Amino acid sequence: MKTKKVAIVGASGYSGEELVRLLLSHPHVDLIAVTSRQYAGQTLAQVFPRFASHPKSRTIRFTEPNVELLAKQAEVVFLALPHGVAAEYAAPLTQRGIVVIDLSADFRVKNPAVYREFYGHDHPAPELLSKAVYGLPEIYRDRIKETSLVASPGCYPTSILLPVIPLLKAKLINPRSIIADSLSGVSGAGRKAELDYLFVECNESMRPYAVPKHRHLSEIEQELSFAAGAAVTIQFTPHLIPVNRGILTTLYLAPTEPINESKGAAAVGEQVAACYQSAYGQEPFVRLLEGKSLPDTKSVVGTNVIEFAWRLDPRTGRLIVMSAEDNLVKGASGQAVQSMNIVCGFPETAGLA
Amino acid sequence: MKTKKVAIVGASGYSGEELVRLLLSHPHVDLIAVTSRQYAGQTLAQVFPRFASHPKSRTIRFTEPNVELLAKQAEVVFLALPHGVAAEYAAPLTQRGIVVIDLSADFRVKNPAVYREFYGHDHPAPELLSKAVYGLPEIYRDRIKETSLVASPGCYPTSILLPVIPLLKAKLINPRSIIADSLSGVSGAGRKAELDYLFVECNESMRPYAVPKHRHLSEIEQELSFAAGAAVTIQFTPHLIPVNRGILTTLYLAPTEPINESKGAAAVGEQVAACYQSAYGQEPFVRLLEGKSLPDTKSVVGTNVIEFAWRLDPRTGRLIVMSAEDNLVKGASGQAVQSMNIVCGFPETAGLA
Amino acid sequence: MKTKKVAIVGASGYSGEELVRLLLSHPHVDLIAVTSRQYAGQTLAQVFPRFASHPKSRTIRFTEPNVELLAKQAEVVFLALPHGVAAEYAAPLTQRGIVVIDLSADFRVKNPAVYREFYGHDHPAPELLSKAVYGLPEIYRDRIKETSLVASPGCYPTSILLPVIPLLKAKLINPRSIIADSLSGVSGAGRKAELDYLFVECNESMRPYAVPKHRHLSEIEQELSFAAGAAVTIQFTPHLIPVNRGILTTLYLAPTEPINESKGAAAVGEQVAACYQSAYGQEPFVRLLEGKSLPDTKSVVGTNVIEFAWRLDPRTGRLIVMSAEDNLVKGASGQAVQSMNIVCGFPETAGLA
Amino acid sequence: MKTKKVAIVGASGYSGEELVRLLLSHPHVDLIAVTSRQYAGQTLAQVFPRFASHPKSRTIRFTEPNVELLAKQAEVVFLALPHGVAAEYAAPLTQRGIVVIDLSADFRVKNPAVYREFYGHDHPAPELLSKAVYGLPEIYRDRIKETSLVASPGCYPTSILLPVIPLLKAKLINPRSIIADSLSGVSGAGRKAELDYLFVECNESMRPYAVPKHRHLSEIEQELSFAAGAAVTIQFTPHLIPVNRGILTTLYLAPTEPINESKGAAAVGEQVAACYQSAYGQEPFVRLLEGKSLPDTKSVVGTNVIEFAWRLDPRTGRLIVMSAEDNLVKGASGQAVQSMNIVCGFPETAGLA
Repeated sequence: MKTKKVAIVGASGYSGEELVRLLLSHPHVDLIAVTSRQYAGQTLAQVFPRFASHPKSRTIRFTEPNVELLAKQAEVVFLALPHGVAAEYAAPLTQRGIVVIDLSADFRVKNPAVYREFYGHDHPAPELLSKAVYGLPEIYRDRIKETSLVASPGCYPTSILLPVIPLLKAKLINPRSIIADSLSGVSGAGRKAELDYLFVECNESMRPYAVPKHRHLSEIEQELSFAAGAAVTIQFTPHLIPVNRGILTTLYLAPTEPINESKGAAAVGEQVAACYQSAYGQEPFVRLLEGKSLPDTKSVVGTNVIEFAWRLDPRTGRLIVMSAEDNLVKGASGQAVQSMNIVCGFPETAGLA
Repeated sequence: MKTKKVAIVGASGYSGEELVRLLLSHPHVDLIAVTSRQYAGQTLAQVFPRFASHPKSRTIRFTEPNVELLAKQAEVVFLALPHGVAAEYAAPLTQRGIVVIDLSADFRVKNPAVYREFYGHDHPAPELLSKAVYGLPEIYRDRIKETSLVASPGCYPTSILLPVIPLLKAKLINPRSIIADSLSGVSGAGRKAELDYLFVECNESMRPYAVPKHRHLSEIEQELSFAAGAAVTIQFTPHLIPVNRGILTTLYLAPTEPINESKGAAAVGEQVAACYQSAYGQEPFVRLLEGKSLPDTKSVVGTNVIEFAWRLDPRTGRLIVMSAEDNLVKGASGQAVQSMNIVCGFPETAGLA
Repeated sequence: MKTKKVAIVGASGYSGEELVRLLLSHPHVDLIAVTSRQYAGQTLAQVFPRFASHPKSRTIRFTEPNVELLAKQAEVVFLALPHGVAAEYAAPLTQRGIVVIDLSADFRVKNPAVYREFYGHDHPAPELLSKAVYGLPEIYRDRIKETSLVASPGCYPTSILLPVIPLLKAKLINPRSIIADSLSGVSGAGRKAELDYLFVECNESMRPYAVPKHRHLSEIEQELSFAAGAAVTIQFTPHLIPVNRGILTTLYLAPTEPINESKGAAAVGEQVAACYQSAYGQEPFVRLLEGKSLPDTKSVVGTNVIEFAWRLDPRTGRLIVMSAEDNLVKGASGQAVQSMNIVCGFPETAGLA
Repeated sequence: MKTKKVAIVGASGYSGEELVRLLLSHPHVDLIAVTSRQYAGQTLAQVFPRFASHPKSRTIRFTEPNVELLAKQAEVVFLALPHGVAAEYAAPLTQRGIVVIDLSADFRVKNPAVYREFYGHDHPAPELLSKAVYGLPEIYRDRIKETSLVASPGCYPTSILLPVIPLLKAKLINPRSIIADSLSGVSGAGRKAELDYLFVECNESMRPYAVPKHRHLSEIEQELSFAAGAAVTIQFTPHLIPVNRGILTTLYLAPTEPINESKGAAAVGEQVAACYQSAYGQEPFVRLLEGKSLPDTKSVVGTNVIEFAWRLDPRTGRLIVMSAEDNLVKGASGQAVQSMNIVCGFPETAGLA
């Protein structure tokens, strides 16, 4: 299989570092450039000592990002940049025929008005929005195959969308009932020198933040609305937890059929099981937990797997779904590589197993 | 003020250790005995090196628990024992006129059938249930004054009941809507040599457990039902988080008045603020956060304070309330001492400020 | 006992926060002012939510530091400032007769040339050096009583000096043999928004730093030289460990009498035990561990206690001494309060037990 | 290259789990059996959910260990068993011509009397001691090639031996001077349900243990003595640190040539650099840090790399060497796989890069 030449723009944060890790060992990728204003001139080995044993870590040197050069050298470019900045690179690179996998929020939200509401500024490249495909392979695999601009989803959205979309499509839950309570490791805040993310401020601390209107709601509600065929508004509360990596989401859902009598519970249970089996039974990166198992982030950290379990509560009539993923892998860089594999025609699990 | 002679039965777990800490420095308490089958014969200093600088730590020696001796020597006895075992001590001690502050679940649930449903065995001393007062001072202060048997609440219940009870009493929320999503530090599991609670199993892990029917639901629903004047069933999901101490609870509630238009939100907001101000404005151990502040367990760890914040979400119409407490202090031993202060006529904050 | 009016200059870091905690509950202190350029205008409750339940936390507001005002209002001023800056306040305050307890390095090193060698700039107030007393109460109690300028020691020095000084004074160890290997919690790096101290950079990491010439060597070697009566140079390696608080120091020492035969070991062991008993047997904040106990930082965190254990190794002939302290209490603010108690004639343990 | 059939006996601890991880993805290995008394009957996926996405995790089921069956089915057997037990399997398997890679201490110490001194019982199979090769590939590669019984080293020994052996062989340091101060993550204590290793007991704690005579001294001193050509006794202090994985060792060494004058330091520095370059310049799993870099366990966790840095201290004349490794990979299972690669003629880095 022919190897692709790949570059990463903005490789200095935690998602960028994880992309470097995945691409250095990807069997069909030749990592040829990494850019970072902050680290320009230094080698990969100097900036990320953990990669220092890889032979390329001493030959690849961070450069200032340069669209012309990138377009000449690379066939695929990953953008690990802040929102608003990514679009500046996506537009000219896409125009020159380069495959762009964007990890920022810039092309996830289809409606520029919603983008402005949640991000506080006008969309920087609205003309590209129709071209971009939301990079959730389990949902949009066929469309990802055809695009050259992937808007790779955020970490919270992945942990919510994958468990909820099949239930909405199958009309098993009430779209107005959705509550998502999420716990995130500190790497989710990025590699930023801010007091709030110091070790002493996070360790031995648990705290909610961005209540009640986190930015990721824009893409979550868009995708849930597509699945439901009607506008969906959800409740979402993120919390910061002292672990390096991982997202654990607990979803509170109301089945469309009441399940307060035990007979109902069994019937709804079979429908939920069948729905998930049909949606994900063959998916390499979705693990449906069985028996008494409940998700635990330590079972998925370092992998591209998202795992779920669900319980029907006959006392309250609710369906509880719990998911766990690595926020930097299935919630960011792993999923981006999965999309690249699809776009480029590689086996979908290449470099991710 | 006359000092009381106090003993602790079962002082070897985390709640027991915290009780020792609080009682050693309590201005009106003379700690005279601690019992533990496991540590009988050893001094406080040997078992808990952190107290070794306290002069009493070398004179107080753990003994086998003995009801006769306790009844002779102590005026107040704290029971930090497993459920089912505490009742064996509570019954004879109460009969002999000793004040008993029980940290177990034995006397929290008024209905023996509910006790059996949740704890799996018959109630060991149903005749005492009517005598026991649920030890939530902010709710039952007057009744605690009159009792000699306090059933001190568990850590999760405190984090849920204090924020929810005033809203239910004021009919501000729909009693069928309550969802409590809780995060607990590992000390909540007790000092038990089990694989699940090893450092390596908990560190870098986030996981739900006991879904959907945790034992604490029995006392939580009982107390919410009393407040609502009708049977209340709630959704409750506990999670295990890698911190030593703390509980963070996020509550999802539906106001009785719809708040989807902004006018409604402001009016409901004023009612909620007034309700909490009236319930807790003068309470020494309840902190109502203002402005943009949200709860953070690190602000309450080591103290007997529970802090809350709330937000109305005009998008979903829900009321979100978040609380933080130290599971071993306001969630266990501090609250027990607070009740003892009330029973004994000490200032309620004695030894807790 | 008459209460003293006390101010803290530079109360926004971790040591400053710990000083606030100790002074708010000190029985003979009236905390009247806290200063911080960064937080001027905010109340204690706003900056440190954990103190929000203390009545003074809403009345005390951070101000810009002002020497004239401080001199008028306060009888004792604590300086929790960077080195080089503290002297600017110490000089005029001391001149006006205010008691100054300085937590910075400015007055710890007696020799201005050594100060310049280790701190990279000229000493800002060399004329005060002879007036300042090194604030290690167990060693300099009598001189602290007489001074109004205390140079309170750093966290690493305390963990090394208290175990080593008595051995040097008793000529039990070879002064050329001293190796100190220290582990510090991350609060030792201060509340600084730097990438190196982010949660994700510190958690699951262990690393040495400042090898081989850490700044604290200047005061450590000065004090050891005083004890030995001759110039002492030591080996010192600090490490950063993912805990909030605590220092654990392991000292490798060569006894002056060889102990390779078992008879020698017993005799030297008796001398070491007698030396420590004589030096610290009556000290309220030094805990000499007995039997098989070894130091553990969790036994001292939150207290002003330093604990030691020692072992003679008959295989190598070395004496190993291990100490544990809370870097922010005995290693900083608690020790500073202990010195204040001595200067002001309060009981030495006031506010610290 | 022909694939080997491989089994793991005792795969339920942390080293066993890591072996499973490495062998499942090894290109030349067919993992055919895992044994565990505790988990017999369960699949790999049930016991280790993190491997559940690997196709083999549902077909491989833990069995009771059975020498006859293992000898029939496997070509290579890894023993991840307690000392004393491993020998029971090593003897009959070796006799039947199976390659045995033993991760226990049973065949590391050549002298049965030393084994008894440190392990408290007679050696269970002294006749095999001469056959076993100490599995430190960087030192004994040629002998590992020829053996069928590898005694794979412990985690502390690897972190000490690799930095020290070349210096001893080159006569650059005084063999009587060696002090090793080591920090270990909690997985080093194994997956044992003991109070000392509970999350709450380890988190926010730093403590030395097994002072001054840890069992690993037996193999460390044996190997250092071989390198020095004379009996070597060292000082070694292990500490337990709240991280899951990693060992950080700081070594204090005395150069044979005094380096107190700056000229000497430069000359000795060149010798040390040349010595390490010659010993490890071509080694795939040894990383010699350059410039200002110091080791950090987070740079090596999850990899088979050990990294070192060294500093000469002109003030004390000592050479300080610091090393970092993953205790479960280079300190256990990774190194064992590296030895298997050598024995089986696979590329040495197969399955480890």
